[in-house]
Amino acid sequence: MNHPELNALRTELDEVNKELLSLINKRGELVQQIGKIKSAQGIKKYDPVRERHMLDLISTENDGPFDTSTLHHLFKEIFKAGLELQEDDHKKELLV
Amino acid sequence: MNHPELNALRTELDEVNKELLSLINKRGELVQQIGKIKSAQGIKKYDPVRERHMLDLISTENDGPFDTSTLHHLFKEIFKAGLELQEDDHKKELLV
Repeated sequence: MNHPELNALRTELDEVNKELLSLINKRGELVQQIGKIKSAQGIKKYDPVRERHMLDLISTENDGPFDTSTLHHLFKEIFKAGLELQEDDHKKELLV
Repeated sequence: MNHPELNALRTELDEVNKELLSLINKRGELVQQIGKIKSAQGIKKYDPVRERHMLDLISTENDGPFDTSTLHHLFKEIFKAGLELQEDDHKKELLV
């Protein structure tokens, strides 16, 4: 099937996917830096107050089309991946 | 607890979260436009070949720190949310 408008939208979607990938990885790097400071200070990695703050920020800033509950679900998955990254780094530190 | 470097990183993380939110919603709008064309043409919303293409793109472009399997998991959640958005739109069309 060949549909010029559909093809153009798909090309744009691929670009957005690449930007998302880059931004998720940038977030990963920030989370790693935060994890290193927390490790050095003996602070717990998981911080429910910060997570609540970040979810509230999403509720406030969201102007759709996704509803806030869907976005909260997606961001919780992103937070979890970030936490796992910090935990992996911490294990590597312990092995050095 | 007050730690200037940690606070600066958290501020940066909030900014990245806002950019992610905006980009996920931009993706949602694109997916809605694609869904409308597909509806009009009677094409199925879920396209496993396109999904494979998008996951392959992520594998190729990923330069970490997240590993590709984690990113595939996150993107599959994002794809699923997009598909649900298209299905909601389709139901609304049918109700009009």
